Amino acid sequence: MENASYTKLLNLSTRASLYSGIGMILEWDLETYMPKKGGENRASQVELIASLIHKEKTSPEFVSALESLVDLETGEIRDSTLSDEHKAALREWRRDYIHEAKLPTEFVEKFAKVTSLACHAWKDAKEENDFKAYLPHLEKVVDLCRKKADFLGYEEHPYDALVDCFEPNMRTKVLAALFERLKIPLTSLIKKIETKKEPESGFLREDYPHDKQIRFGKKILTAMGFDKSFSRLDESAHPMCIPIHPDDTRMTTRVYPNNVLINLLSCIHEGGHGLYHSNLPSEHFGSPLGEAASLGIDESQSRLWETILGRSLPFWQHFFPLLQKEFPEQLAEVQLQEFYQGMNTVRPSMIRTDSDEVTYNLHIMVRFEMEKALIEGKLKVEKIPEAWNEKMREYLGITPKADSEGCLQDIHWSLGAIGYFPTYTLGNLYAGQIFETLKDNFPDWKENLAKGELSFIRDWTKREIHQHGRRYLPDELCKRVTGKPLSEKPFIDYLEKKYTALYHL
Amino acid sequence: MENASYTKLLNLSTRASLYSGIGMILEWDLETYMPKKGGENRASQVELIASLIHKEKTSPEFVSALESLVDLETGEIRDSTLSDEHKAALREWRRDYIHEAKLPTEFVEKFAKVTSLACHAWKDAKEENDFKAYLPHLEKVVDLCRKKADFLGYEEHPYDALVDCFEPNMRTKVLAALFERLKIPLTSLIKKIETKKEPESGFLREDYPHDKQIRFGKKILTAMGFDKSFSRLDESAHPMCIPIHPDDTRMTTRVYPNNVLINLLSCIHEGGHGLYHSNLPSEHFGSPLGEAASLGIDESQSRLWETILGRSLPFWQHFFPLLQKEFPEQLAEVQLQEFYQGMNTVRPSMIRTDSDEVTYNLHIMVRFEMEKALIEGKLKVEKIPEAWNEKMREYLGITPKADSEGCLQDIHWSLGAIGYFPTYTLGNLYAGQIFETLKDNFPDWKENLAKGELSFIRDWTKREIHQHGRRYLPDELCKRVTGKPLSEKPFIDYLEKKYTALYHL
Repeated sequence: MENASYTKLLNLSTRASLYSGIGMILEWDLETYMPKKGGENRASQVELIASLIHKEKTSPEFVSALESLVDLETGEIRDSTLSDEHKAALREWRRDYIHEAKLPTEFVEKFAKVTSLACHAWKDAKEENDFKAYLPHLEKVVDLCRKKADFLGYEEHPYDALVDCFEPNMRTKVLAALFERLKIPLTSLIKKIETKKEPESGFLREDYPHDKQIRFGKKILTAMGFDKSFSRLDESAHPMCIPIHPDDTRMTTRVYPNNVLINLLSCIHEGGHGLYHSNLPSEHFGSPLGEAASLGIDESQSRLWETILGRSLPFWQHFFPLLQKEFPEQLAEVQLQEFYQGMNTVRPSMIRTDSDEVTYNLHIMVRFEMEKALIEGKLKVEKIPEAWNEKMREYLGITPKADSEGCLQDIHWSLGAIGYFPTYTLGNLYAGQIFETLKDNFPDWKENLAKGELSFIRDWTKREIHQHGRRYLPDELCKRVTGKPLSEKPFIDYLEKKYTALYHL
Repeated sequence: MENASYTKLLNLSTRASLYSGIGMILEWDLETYMPKKGGENRASQVELIASLIHKEKTSPEFVSALESLVDLETGEIRDSTLSDEHKAALREWRRDYIHEAKLPTEFVEKFAKVTSLACHAWKDAKEENDFKAYLPHLEKVVDLCRKKADFLGYEEHPYDALVDCFEPNMRTKVLAALFERLKIPLTSLIKKIETKKEPESGFLREDYPHDKQIRFGKKILTAMGFDKSFSRLDESAHPMCIPIHPDDTRMTTRVYPNNVLINLLSCIHEGGHGLYHSNLPSEHFGSPLGEAASLGIDESQSRLWETILGRSLPFWQHFFPLLQKEFPEQLAEVQLQEFYQGMNTVRPSMIRTDSDEVTYNLHIMVRFEMEKALIEGKLKVEKIPEAWNEKMREYLGITPKADSEGCLQDIHWSLGAIGYFPTYTLGNLYAGQIFETLKDNFPDWKENLAKGELSFIRDWTKREIHQHGRRYLPDELCKRVTGKPLSEKPFIDYLEKKYTALYHL
């Protein structure tokens, strides 16, 4: 049933979504094809679009349309004849609006300016391995993030307010407990693995020609369900998914001529994001029902594909012979089992983005604990390098030789995205739990994967997760899909089972 | 000297230019890389940006900033201490504003809607060769263009108002006189040529591999002065130049595997536009001083390169050996002179965009005379096919077999761009006259070209034309550069001399 007020609100909100899509095109172009000198002009364009989005989301017209449907104070829906779906959309629109409205415009502008300068400073500092030069910028960012938490408000912990921006309703104490329960099983699994001989994996680092790598990445994406009528694969320095619209979903990858895994796993990872976004309901474009539920849920889709499926034996039972055919010189003599073992080598390393699925979450734990302490005021910004290195030693048993491979490796803090990192681990945990349910539903999942049959996963995740957009909050969605609240257990079980077999522990 | 009011106006105006640049990125992406299904969402984005541009150009804030510097009634500059450059910018800002303000918003919206539907209808009608289906759309467009002329106002002829949108200060009677003076020399030149044997040109239509064609196009563009730090070459169905900013100038080409000329000439043509736009002064981005003087002047730069230089013997003295090297199978046995003659074959043909430089302006004359009659009300829209075919017979001696290769071939009328076509011929005439001056300035131009030395042309056109933006109106610019008002004579002289020699007339 059409509701005129709802339609009016949707039309206004669609404008903001169109601007977001335009912003994404500018970003995509910047990362893929823009001539280098165009950067300055591009920055002005991006800034202009960002300010338009904020304006649309807080315009008097939008607020009055929203207010006519929902009490902004209490959240009460004024029209009880609305469908449950539309009521959920209003709940989320209200959440977004309250968030936007709590931050004064001058604060938003200052935040944008400070983080923009911090990003520039960070790039130089990382290159020069010069934390000191970056320090005054990061101090300002942390200070602004603490102010942001105050503006947004919180019941228990200021970090709650920041995490909530990326993972609605997630709390610091829940995260702390999750990481606490991850710490021992992960570190003890790593210790056990370290007593074993590392599998051979030199064949992954032979010379793999660029164009063939791209072609193979596209082959996997095609098997995942992509075609060029609604998607693209391009290259950029950092792989990403740019979801302009369900009908225009773009992914990028990165090709290392001497490492075949990077491109393969990037394509599968971004493909996981891409499936989510291309399966969002077009008819709800412009409303929260047309958006991903949270960063954690989004990441669960990319990690389900990249790690749990994309690093599994059945997946490569199908794809490895094809990969051998494309790269006979490099792989003809390699056995499937060797390939599988080689690509699942576990070894503590400095760089989060290069790390295996066992050590990965310890990298996140380092960041989470430091962010929490920074926001609590218990850790001074100037002490970050020391604290970082100490935690790396404690959890991963290695110490960065330089801040550039330590606390300067990620861009997130420069962006002001304190509270973002935990969503990576949440993504892994959701993925583990979703995978458990998937296996229950499809007892022959291994046989299907081994035949290159992936559509049952695509269809199931679409039905269970993608098509709902933000209708359910992440915790609610998790319970609906898996029957249980989020737990680290399925993920730990998955890792222990897989690596016990792989390393004969 | 900085003038605060001028800076304020420039800042406001820069917003509109940034939106234009964003619109161009959306257009570029649409024509090059966008997945097909993204089209509907893209149309919504484009519409939104277009409305933003109109809003910025007529906002009360902008108008009051403009009014503080120039009397909108009389054009009198209020601050006599402003530089001549800034005064010229104000003259043009005022011209643009008066134009925007004369058209009521409802009219602009209706015009956008009608032409958008007409474009869709035109595509189908062209494909189906069905003028009748397109007729009601075109009737509406012509009707709206006549209304547009009334809104804009004119002294002598309603068509003046329409032409003025594309070529400031150009008048119908001037155009009519120019075409009248072109008609006899062109038709008699064609008749003379038709008595001669057509040169061999089959070697141009051998199998020319796609990637090599693109590579060679880039080679020419590099010689013209482009590099990838501020420019790109991509492919699209219709070659175009997308000038986002002087530091981000994009060109597209089209590759026919069985016709090597299309890509070569497209690259040189769009490169001519590209040089103009990349040489516009960055420091004036956002003001009329950072924009091209007119469509006619813009086209003079593309046609100077594509036809006068790019179809000249000295140009190919340098490039033909390189082309032979790239395509030895196709060209090793061909002599430079044969290549030169083959690429300059004159033959009346149906399609304007495929036509040689002698017949080209007769195609424009057909369109100009019909547009004029349509706006005068002397030609009914339903009679267009008949009138078209009659004029083609009269001027070119050939008759379209179907409307799809006749009056349905171009998109311009569907876009509502009545008054645009004459700028193509103006471009050719300006180019002829500019070339005459160029030769006077560089008596050794042939020797330079034959050495592949093109920078003297780039530098001279930059200094004489590009760097001025819209500081001078087209007729004034023409006089400044060539010392004379625009005349058809240099162009006719150029053609007669070239083709008399080529065809031994």
